[in-house]
Amino acid sequence: MSSPTFQPDERFAHELDAHDELASFRQQFVIDDPDMVYLLGNSLGRLPRAAAPHIHDLVHEQWGKRLIRGWNEGWFSQPNELGAKIARLIGAQPDEVIVADSTSVNLFKLAMAAIQAQRGRTTIVTDDLNFPSDLYILNSVARLAGLDHRLEIISSPDEIYGPVQALQQAINEQTALVSLSATVFKSSYTYNMAAITAAAHEQGALVLWDLSHATGAVLLDLNGAGADLAVGCTYKYLCGGPGAPAFLYVRRDLQEKLTNPISGWIGQNDPFAFGLEYKPAPGIQRFLTGTPAMLSLTALLAGVDLLLQAGMAQVRAKSVAQTEYLIYLWQEMLEPVGFSLKSPREAEWRGSHVAFGHPEGMRISRALKEELNVLPDFRKPDNLRFAAAPLFNSYHDIYQAVTRLRRVIDERLYEKFPTDSPAVT
Amino acid sequence: MSSPTFQPDERFAHELDAHDELASFRQQFVIDDPDMVYLLGNSLGRLPRAAAPHIHDLVHEQWGKRLIRGWNEGWFSQPNELGAKIARLIGAQPDEVIVADSTSVNLFKLAMAAIQAQRGRTTIVTDDLNFPSDLYILNSVARLAGLDHRLEIISSPDEIYGPVQALQQAINEQTALVSLSATVFKSSYTYNMAAITAAAHEQGALVLWDLSHATGAVLLDLNGAGADLAVGCTYKYLCGGPGAPAFLYVRRDLQEKLTNPISGWIGQNDPFAFGLEYKPAPGIQRFLTGTPAMLSLTALLAGVDLLLQAGMAQVRAKSVAQTEYLIYLWQEMLEPVGFSLKSPREAEWRGSHVAFGHPEGMRISRALKEELNVLPDFRKPDNLRFAAAPLFNSYHDIYQAVTRLRRVIDERLYEKFPTDSPAVT
Repeated sequence: MSSPTFQPDERFAHELDAHDELASFRQQFVIDDPDMVYLLGNSLGRLPRAAAPHIHDLVHEQWGKRLIRGWNEGWFSQPNELGAKIARLIGAQPDEVIVADSTSVNLFKLAMAAIQAQRGRTTIVTDDLNFPSDLYILNSVARLAGLDHRLEIISSPDEIYGPVQALQQAINEQTALVSLSATVFKSSYTYNMAAITAAAHEQGALVLWDLSHATGAVLLDLNGAGADLAVGCTYKYLCGGPGAPAFLYVRRDLQEKLTNPISGWIGQNDPFAFGLEYKPAPGIQRFLTGTPAMLSLTALLAGVDLLLQAGMAQVRAKSVAQTEYLIYLWQEMLEPVGFSLKSPREAEWRGSHVAFGHPEGMRISRALKEELNVLPDFRKPDNLRFAAAPLFNSYHDIYQAVTRLRRVIDERLYEKFPTDSPAVT
Repeated sequence: MSSPTFQPDERFAHELDAHDELASFRQQFVIDDPDMVYLLGNSLGRLPRAAAPHIHDLVHEQWGKRLIRGWNEGWFSQPNELGAKIARLIGAQPDEVIVADSTSVNLFKLAMAAIQAQRGRTTIVTDDLNFPSDLYILNSVARLAGLDHRLEIISSPDEIYGPVQALQQAINEQTALVSLSATVFKSSYTYNMAAITAAAHEQGALVLWDLSHATGAVLLDLNGAGADLAVGCTYKYLCGGPGAPAFLYVRRDLQEKLTNPISGWIGQNDPFAFGLEYKPAPGIQRFLTGTPAMLSLTALLAGVDLLLQAGMAQVRAKSVAQTEYLIYLWQEMLEPVGFSLKSPREAEWRGSHVAFGHPEGMRISRALKEELNVLPDFRKPDNLRFAAAPLFNSYHDIYQAVTRLRRVIDERLYEKFPTDSPAVT
């Protein structure tokens, strides 16, 4: 199914859905308005039906009735148990992943831990396709690590593809850490994790991956790539809910060599000894900081279980097929009316979202939302992104998105909106 | 009602409840097992009835139906709106408090920000009554701030009262920051915030308060005390649910002088410009880091609203009356059988929990839980704590706790448990 001969009509979209082995997963999600096109799994995944009973149980049965006993009846182990499940989605061992905090806080913790372990090395290398707040965090880490430390931001050649060669040239014996988004947020470009990791290791540098736009979207094999460190969010393709807690990965043999700079109670070896001196817990546990946010953690379980049930190989195969189909329809219907493709054409370099450019992008996004019931994803200055979330998106969703985009142009619907209208987020 | 003449019989407990102006608030909480004694508002507050509909609405109506639109329909402003409400509970301005992360992460952020702003000053001063993980965090901050920085831990004279004099002597022109728990977790000792703050300011030091055991328990007046910085948790007396997000306070005139070391996307001035360079948002917003955990945030609303409705002056008056009553019953029934009082006798130096010591504390706590339906709170080596959460605890709860404690001794119920039985948490 990875490169079928596509056809541009609606009947064909239904045919693709009829042959889709993952099609039944759509019924596992709450879909309130079947006419609405929601290709935003890259931003906030839909609500899995199974999330609600988990949350209800946590609130009414556990918090309400078991009260403080909940901590010893499963709450304390949730960050590890969820981490072990996420590990299976990203090619890691169960004791290499744990759920905690936000992506930014985890990025801070692991980047600082890496810098501290890499004494004598003074640079962090990244690229300008990385999510901006990753750069903010990495800059903070460099600043706190010492006056001689700095963040080096490598420019991408064309805003679509990662600056692979320039990165490899920039990594040297001064490099403490390389930190990149595995799949970048705008263009969807996806790094060859093994190649970058090997180049970094050759120079003695560690690599810290942000998997936020990659987890549940592409086939990740952290162990196979020899990956050192990673963080990622769970509210996108993992469908954990708004602001769901993030995860972090530390390769097993690195865990005891690194120090969590935000050394909190839950990462302590024996929290209930209440010792005045911090002794880190063994293994991945030491990278925890504060009390786990149980409501948000619990909501995450359902989405992760669905991905495990579907299997990442199947999910990725559908992601490739759906984004290929989207690009095919772009070529048929959108390129002729001025949309450019702002993502890699080759599936191997692409995540599960596709970006289109159009000079009227901002007004088009408003027209999509307000006239045609397509929730948009607009990024300045001209970028419209559409994500295939294989668990809940049908091929017909993709067909609808493209035909409605085309209608916005054909019927000049965007002209209803002022050129200075605020961006829709 | 703050110092009535108490009587030791059950009838009197009911009489106190009959005259309690806040008694009806108990019905606003889920109380599944009316026989169970739950004096653990200092650990995990009960589930407010109003929390469930808030959570249901967030999950089903907002996440389920509004999807990504939720961010512009209220989610983004929740950290500020909840912060503004908490501000009214702690004597701060609405724009001085924001909800974010965990207490430990917030402590790290504010302590590091303070140290960075206090160039040339090298010590952080704290005491050994502080929550141990606060010490871990402060130690990390000192370590990251530079080799010449250190944490000075002042010893308390007797494990009950804070080392006020020794602290005042320790604060000098080298002190960058003083950080203390406003109400300490074991003995319940409560600092005079204004006095400590004045002593610190006299030497040019900043003060960072951990309000976790004080918020919703004592009358706090951060503005009146000239307080600089504070953090606190929300799952205790604020009844926000297990692992509910924490809050932080930064005095208005300090906000623009301090830099958040974990400078994330949500604390950026214009997150949707996706600029590569971090520009802090104005005011308290800059101390945010990652995406707010909406489920956990939403659960917190109900408990905060109940405290506002009751009024902190009334809540504190009942807290004083209830802890006085508890100490009276201790004197009548528990002191004669070997329990010591490990909290200040004077209400002005006490939070809303009271600690008792007994050499058989660990086995007593097991007997309370497994024989007499009292959920215990034991801290090594011999410490049993009982908290009056004025919104959901009755005077009869307190009467029951003391009489059941007495039964454990009289009927030697603790002897059923091995001396090396694991601590109940």
